[in-house]
Amino acid sequence: MQLAQSDDLSGYVIAPDPAAPRLTRVVEGVDHEGNPSRISVVEERPLTIFLNGQEIVTAMTIGDYPEYLALGFLRNQGMLATGEVVCGVDYDEDLETVVVRTDGQTTYEEKLKKKTRTSGCAVGTVFGDMMEGLEGVRLPEVEVKTSDLYALASKINRTPSLYLEAGAIHGTVLCQGARPLVYMEDVGRHNAVDKIAGWMLSEGVSAGDKTLYTTGRLTSEMVIKTAMMGIPVLASRSGFTAWGVEIARQVGLTLIGRMRGKRFVCLAGEERVLRDADPASVDEESPKHRRKGGEA
Amino acid sequence: MQLAQSDDLSGYVIAPDPAAPRLTRVVEGVDHEGNPSRISVVEERPLTIFLNGQEIVTAMTIGDYPEYLALGFLRNQGMLATGEVVCGVDYDEDLETVVVRTDGQTTYEEKLKKKTRTSGCAVGTVFGDMMEGLEGVRLPEVEVKTSDLYALASKINRTPSLYLEAGAIHGTVLCQGARPLVYMEDVGRHNAVDKIAGWMLSEGVSAGDKTLYTTGRLTSEMVIKTAMMGIPVLASRSGFTAWGVEIARQVGLTLIGRMRGKRFVCLAGEERVLRDADPASVDEESPKHRRKGGEA
Repeated sequence: MQLAQSDDLSGYVIAPDPAAPRLTRVVEGVDHEGNPSRISVVEERPLTIFLNGQEIVTAMTIGDYPEYLALGFLRNQGMLATGEVVCGVDYDEDLETVVVRTDGQTTYEEKLKKKTRTSGCAVGTVFGDMMEGLEGVRLPEVEVKTSDLYALASKINRTPSLYLEAGAIHGTVLCQGARPLVYMEDVGRHNAVDKIAGWMLSEGVSAGDKTLYTTGRLTSEMVIKTAMMGIPVLASRSGFTAWGVEIARQVGLTLIGRMRGKRFVCLAGEERVLRDADPASVDEESPKHRRKGGEA
Repeated sequence: MQLAQSDDLSGYVIAPDPAAPRLTRVVEGVDHEGNPSRISVVEERPLTIFLNGQEIVTAMTIGDYPEYLALGFLRNQGMLATGEVVCGVDYDEDLETVVVRTDGQTTYEEKLKKKTRTSGCAVGTVFGDMMEGLEGVRLPEVEVKTSDLYALASKINRTPSLYLEAGAIHGTVLCQGARPLVYMEDVGRHNAVDKIAGWMLSEGVSAGDKTLYTTGRLTSEMVIKTAMMGIPVLASRSGFTAWGVEIARQVGLTLIGRMRGKRFVCLAGEERVLRDADPASVDEESPKHRRKGGEA
């Protein structure tokens, strides 16, 4: 297994760190036979995100990469527009806060002030803002090779992760061709995506040539976030929602789900899928990975 | 299968309705072999919840039981205190809104006004309010029979549901002893719990003698909601987070996870578990149910 593990980490810019002491904890319990059971469970911490002076949300997170999470969340919610210059991201571990600072007030803060005068609340606007952000979005038409998808799923499944270590966590991986680049995990699948968005924003990484792979379901929110990030391909081992499919078709996102071993279903962007791999040559997943799926 | 199905529905007050046309849709796609594939996917709709004049949140939901969802959400978030009298719950299908009306202004609305003057936003307060609501909560010390847990898991797994029909959805079931009473499903596992809370509130159902079974993970938010509802037992086929376990131990909730066939792990309240069933006599889950776990 050791060799396989080192192989699996080749090519990653950021890989999971299942050994990091801050991310998991061993908890003592009792199993079905009445025997003591020590199991590893993931940590979960509140993180309150501020945009300048404005408290935005408290997210539950495993707590790695709080700066990326805050940046990515604000960008994916459309609260941080493309033009706006981020001049600082300050994380305070004791206060469990992260403050994203921009040059001057953001358009979102202005909008929020108006909103606040009327309904006094910002929560309800978040979803509306996300749909707004999608208007006119058309993703680049890139070819999707099934050989790449199979290679990615196999590499990602065998990559040492909190998912394999402790379960009860979602993983999302930014990929290029057959290569996984950044593998983020979190208790909420949206956090994992937002951390990737924050990393891309910080590093100025292009999106048009990337694929996003997630262990989570392909809901409208996952599809919207992927489109907001400008990534044209979203693949998952889990299933779909009707609206997720509709939005994917609207923005030109190639949407592939229920990907297990050789099996998958493409519900949007089929015309961009190049079937260059013979499914018969693809191994089925090991029971271990199938089973872990249930932890999602 | 027909006989098994009718058996499985015996005793339910509310059971899933996988045949309801409004909840799923057949979508055409292409499978891994390039063949046309028609799969059933769950619907997903926005629902904006108001408390009197106050817009609170927009939830993504399959859209059944919007009134229960709104009531349960507000109660589980501590926005609707025990004393407060609900005088109306108005759902507007076209506007996709539900308004919960109380006699006079709620303490939450007053708090929100103060909050709004300072940070201008209510989102960040939600989590803090939930923890606040837990102060002093001690759940009744009820015996938990493993024979009941095994019977519930088996009945629930075999109950016709959107989960078995279309996947990509979570289920939560309110149970009493070995009997499932109310089986709610939704795209977000929290919605399913909130719909149960709304039903209990509307029907004036007691909580101290109930068990909550969920397909989702045992995160802090799931544990908090269960405790806010006054239900002393929470069981899941999925895994744990460290904070979920901590809170369960703090409020005296019996927490059982990773429940698959004969297997489970108890991480809180073990002293209240009565092991009256021989695990060796319990059947393993069918591959069908194991696999479906991955859709969560």
